[in-house]
Amino acid sequence: MTSTGQKIKAGIVGASGYTGAEAMRLLLRHPNVDISFLTADRKAGQSVAEVYPHLGGYGLPDMIALDEVDWREADVVFCGLPHGTTQELIASLPGDLKIVDMSADFRIDDVATYAEWYGHEHRAPDLQVEAVYGLTEMNRSAISAARLVACPGCFPTAALLSLLPLVSAGIIDAYDLVIDAKSGVTGAGRGLKQNTLFSEAGEGLSPYSVAKHRHAPEIEQEVAKAIGAPAADVRVNFVPHLVPMSRGELITSHVRLTPGKTAADIRSAFEQTFDGEPFVRVLPDGGVPHTQMVRGSNNCVINVFEDRIPGRAVVIAVIDNLVKGSSGQAVQNMNLMFGLAETLGLEQAPLFP
Amino acid sequence: MTSTGQKIKAGIVGASGYTGAEAMRLLLRHPNVDISFLTADRKAGQSVAEVYPHLGGYGLPDMIALDEVDWREADVVFCGLPHGTTQELIASLPGDLKIVDMSADFRIDDVATYAEWYGHEHRAPDLQVEAVYGLTEMNRSAISAARLVACPGCFPTAALLSLLPLVSAGIIDAYDLVIDAKSGVTGAGRGLKQNTLFSEAGEGLSPYSVAKHRHAPEIEQEVAKAIGAPAADVRVNFVPHLVPMSRGELITSHVRLTPGKTAADIRSAFEQTFDGEPFVRVLPDGGVPHTQMVRGSNNCVINVFEDRIPGRAVVIAVIDNLVKGSSGQAVQNMNLMFGLAETLGLEQAPLFP
Amino acid sequence: MTSTGQKIKAGIVGASGYTGAEAMRLLLRHPNVDISFLTADRKAGQSVAEVYPHLGGYGLPDMIALDEVDWREADVVFCGLPHGTTQELIASLPGDLKIVDMSADFRIDDVATYAEWYGHEHRAPDLQVEAVYGLTEMNRSAISAARLVACPGCFPTAALLSLLPLVSAGIIDAYDLVIDAKSGVTGAGRGLKQNTLFSEAGEGLSPYSVAKHRHAPEIEQEVAKAIGAPAADVRVNFVPHLVPMSRGELITSHVRLTPGKTAADIRSAFEQTFDGEPFVRVLPDGGVPHTQMVRGSNNCVINVFEDRIPGRAVVIAVIDNLVKGSSGQAVQNMNLMFGLAETLGLEQAPLFP
Amino acid sequence: MTSTGQKIKAGIVGASGYTGAEAMRLLLRHPNVDISFLTADRKAGQSVAEVYPHLGGYGLPDMIALDEVDWREADVVFCGLPHGTTQELIASLPGDLKIVDMSADFRIDDVATYAEWYGHEHRAPDLQVEAVYGLTEMNRSAISAARLVACPGCFPTAALLSLLPLVSAGIIDAYDLVIDAKSGVTGAGRGLKQNTLFSEAGEGLSPYSVAKHRHAPEIEQEVAKAIGAPAADVRVNFVPHLVPMSRGELITSHVRLTPGKTAADIRSAFEQTFDGEPFVRVLPDGGVPHTQMVRGSNNCVINVFEDRIPGRAVVIAVIDNLVKGSSGQAVQNMNLMFGLAETLGLEQAPLFP
Repeated sequence: MTSTGQKIKAGIVGASGYTGAEAMRLLLRHPNVDISFLTADRKAGQSVAEVYPHLGGYGLPDMIALDEVDWREADVVFCGLPHGTTQELIASLPGDLKIVDMSADFRIDDVATYAEWYGHEHRAPDLQVEAVYGLTEMNRSAISAARLVACPGCFPTAALLSLLPLVSAGIIDAYDLVIDAKSGVTGAGRGLKQNTLFSEAGEGLSPYSVAKHRHAPEIEQEVAKAIGAPAADVRVNFVPHLVPMSRGELITSHVRLTPGKTAADIRSAFEQTFDGEPFVRVLPDGGVPHTQMVRGSNNCVINVFEDRIPGRAVVIAVIDNLVKGSSGQAVQNMNLMFGLAETLGLEQAPLFP
Repeated sequence: MTSTGQKIKAGIVGASGYTGAEAMRLLLRHPNVDISFLTADRKAGQSVAEVYPHLGGYGLPDMIALDEVDWREADVVFCGLPHGTTQELIASLPGDLKIVDMSADFRIDDVATYAEWYGHEHRAPDLQVEAVYGLTEMNRSAISAARLVACPGCFPTAALLSLLPLVSAGIIDAYDLVIDAKSGVTGAGRGLKQNTLFSEAGEGLSPYSVAKHRHAPEIEQEVAKAIGAPAADVRVNFVPHLVPMSRGELITSHVRLTPGKTAADIRSAFEQTFDGEPFVRVLPDGGVPHTQMVRGSNNCVINVFEDRIPGRAVVIAVIDNLVKGSSGQAVQNMNLMFGLAETLGLEQAPLFP
Repeated sequence: MTSTGQKIKAGIVGASGYTGAEAMRLLLRHPNVDISFLTADRKAGQSVAEVYPHLGGYGLPDMIALDEVDWREADVVFCGLPHGTTQELIASLPGDLKIVDMSADFRIDDVATYAEWYGHEHRAPDLQVEAVYGLTEMNRSAISAARLVACPGCFPTAALLSLLPLVSAGIIDAYDLVIDAKSGVTGAGRGLKQNTLFSEAGEGLSPYSVAKHRHAPEIEQEVAKAIGAPAADVRVNFVPHLVPMSRGELITSHVRLTPGKTAADIRSAFEQTFDGEPFVRVLPDGGVPHTQMVRGSNNCVINVFEDRIPGRAVVIAVIDNLVKGSSGQAVQNMNLMFGLAETLGLEQAPLFP
Repeated sequence: MTSTGQKIKAGIVGASGYTGAEAMRLLLRHPNVDISFLTADRKAGQSVAEVYPHLGGYGLPDMIALDEVDWREADVVFCGLPHGTTQELIASLPGDLKIVDMSADFRIDDVATYAEWYGHEHRAPDLQVEAVYGLTEMNRSAISAARLVACPGCFPTAALLSLLPLVSAGIIDAYDLVIDAKSGVTGAGRGLKQNTLFSEAGEGLSPYSVAKHRHAPEIEQEVAKAIGAPAADVRVNFVPHLVPMSRGELITSHVRLTPGKTAADIRSAFEQTFDGEPFVRVLPDGGVPHTQMVRGSNNCVINVFEDRIPGRAVVIAVIDNLVKGSSGQAVQNMNLMFGLAETLGLEQAPLFP
């Protein structure tokens, strides 16, 4: 409920993508939320059961087109549109409507950097100034006060949760971050692409966007902020790989320790940073995070390992890319924005096997 | 809560198997249940995080050995032991303890048939008389009054939900049921077997126990009951196949219509039988059930199709073998046995993808 | 080599699909064949390495458009085009060019039945008369003498190899065939479809075209021929399921025995029919065929099982849908058409795991 | 044939493991080899069809126990035993028998290092001196003259093929190698382990042996040799991950360039080193190696990418762990040891999808 005791009315824009579907799944069981509309331009008029058969039978509204929306029906809007389409949309909405954006449209502070990586000029630079970066555990107070939250990319979520506490504390070298990333296929969305066909992505492993993925500048921006450096100064190695699984994301960061620091210092920083966090779990020494630990949940599991090369360590973090990496973190942010307990709607334990 | 307002204290016996883990997952979020103990003889002393890393961090008790249990700590016990071991155990427990058995030990009414299929004499024939077959939607009143409920096998659950309404109503021939079944690999349990290794079960499909699977006599027993025939009279064709997926079960029943009956009569029977059921969904005409619709949920999705052979029809049903096919139905039965709303703890929407 | 000692010049039309790629894979190691051209209209100008990276480095010619082909460069053409496009093409080619068609265009003898199932009038009815049905083991002499061979569909190949010997010999009832079929995802081709995305087809099982798949009339036609009945008289139950694996096909046929016949008679018929066959293997009693036995090979593995319902039996057959179910059988037929040993180019053992 | 025109008689010791099966698959089609015996102590007396159903029907001899072998029946023995068991065995064999060892028993030159990593003293230190490291492309002349070849581990094969040419030429820093490795599940063998069950390894990704895998010292040894340093001086970061696929291995090496060197220098080194190599393919600029390119083949595909961090580059290499990473390279080495064309028995194109 909101402070007035009414349920929060939530609309989902771009409900036919995987992040939209996941937002539906989480919100339909959120005790304080009613889903008031779902938009999907190309599926307008279809029932949820037609678009996502697993969500049939839950009384969700049919898909409508964007221009059919009555925005007064919503207190908050979750945006799951492809990047580039959300900026103008949000600029046109009532100014008091809260927005939780799951696209990339407001993640990059610098509009020139945005244009360079996303291939077009930013269409709402004024709003960009207002947008708050929604990495919940690292940015709680700003998110609580925000009207427009830009949820991080899935890779940046796992990478930054496990690296920001270390660069902030000066335990590792922010200028020598090797981030070897692995993702399930839902990370590529529901659009039709040859490389995400079952017979192409199955029974194999493929790197992609090697050292030129759009999540690299996003990680660099937040690392730079954490150390107080200009964003342009920080460059990270970031190599994602497509893994034959639907969900799950694993980040293996190969880091250089600041002289005098050890893996134990990393562990201490993790334990201190995440003490009491409901969704971040630091494993005991030697415990290896794997994606099967978090499937379907908003959890992030982290650990650190000594490396064989002196002065180096290995940091591993896992999330479910569709939950903590997208719609789950979005709900977590919405909870903060409405003054609710952060865990509402997100208590489900992971599904394994 | 029980009628006295106390939370129900639930123990799980055999918690290290997949059904045990799934019972944990569901019960730890059940609003009226506290998990009081978990047993796993070979894992005694280990934490849940060691046995099932995805359930670490939820405050569950450590595994203990069976002989360490104080049975007064439980109002109800969920049994997830391998078949053959539950009969003696239950016979030794306090007589007022409610039991939800997820093993095969009390599914077969006739102890001679049990002995024939399970390879040993029944060890608690007196209790067998007391046991109630826990196919919830078909046996609600008996389950509500029962102390000992024998939850059906996973295949029988999907097969019987979709066939009993039809043989009961005389719409199809109970003596010519061809039940082609497909299951995910968790159906084979967590025990170490060569044929369930990733590299053996993956990227392939294999039938097993062709026309001699233990779920055949269980299906025959219930079909016979439904038509008032001796169990020995009914024989079904039952051929299961191992599918390279972890969860999910699909039953394709090729049925012969009673003269004069049509697929539309089957549809009517389904709609009438399952009207208002929270967990059974009959799809609209033409809608094809697939296991991705129900993953992680207690749902069963059903439909019927005309066959090309005149006088025949095809009935398809899907469930998640670990939820509706095991631990979910067990929780559903527990809810009934304690007079609770049947859906408590089971409201989670399916996880897709 | 042909009889003149020259290598056979083979062209592949529609080389960008999976059957085309598989034909490349087999033919590039065929000792008597040179691949002279590859067509793929939408990929014209691309190298094989661009279209199928696994086949880069083998010296294959680049893709060209159909209208760039000099047909004199080929002794035989393998056609892997989508159905409906091959009829006119072949009608326009030199009359002495041998054709091995892997599409559905010439499989159905009756042009009215073709039109009913494939949605357009047959465009080369004269050629239809000439076309020979290429189920190699059942139709060898006609294939040897043929100019135009229509390779069977993947499902019909496995179904007919395991059922024709039985209906021909009167061991089973040709009018009560229940054919429960399962296929890997390559069976749906390389075209972009939502239901064959990794995240949609993975970790789940889905029936499709229930009792109305185009392979049903093809099976009916050949069963009818085998028993000397009009095609319109035979109707089979045929229900295919999409399995989360790339390759492999398994047919579970639930058959009714002719009075007096037993599963042992089926076994005898199999052993007699397939004695000495290089690619068909009848397992010993109790051995269960599974698709992992045949991956990447031209093999078909078969067995029969007694059913629990008296008078019924279960016949199981597996093939690799892209090899024996398509391009492998095509090469086998080509070998026959050129008087070569049938196994040339097809000797590879299955790949497992 | 050997030089005398006789076929080479090959025995396979430890034929029931995956590397043994793969050796069978390759050798049964090798034109110059006859398989004379197969040993598998725990499967002695079983047919190949029982142990590996996909290889039934190829006329292979039954499994026998080690002590039943008449070693005079073999010109060469392929050893696929678990590590630690091969040393004594080989020490006991006729001194003129050629040995291609696929285990880890003779890979580590320094017996103290061996003892440290493999948990027991080396049992044949004299033979260790004789053993030649079988990384074919890097060690051809020694292999040609060898009696005992120790085939590299699967990870070292891909890592060293892509790194040795670079450290040898001084293009990259041998003391700052970050090797992020990913492997299919067959890499863990056919033994029964919980973490390689389908339901545990499927639909997820898990790192293992983080920074303490036995392939690390093997890589370090060869890197050290290449730069003329003591083995103890070189330490590499090596983190393997278990990927839900059966076959395939991908190495992502994050390397530091020697001052003044660029990714283009790496490309040149690759092109020069592998020019004319039948099994190593350097992709054109921008081409991304993925494991689907090499499945079932002896190929290794390599490329290099500029990194975002100045002075760094990313090197990617893929192999099929059971072929080039084990049995295929073993056959390649055997060909060399007998003076045959290196590609014999290994010409099969990759299987995709």
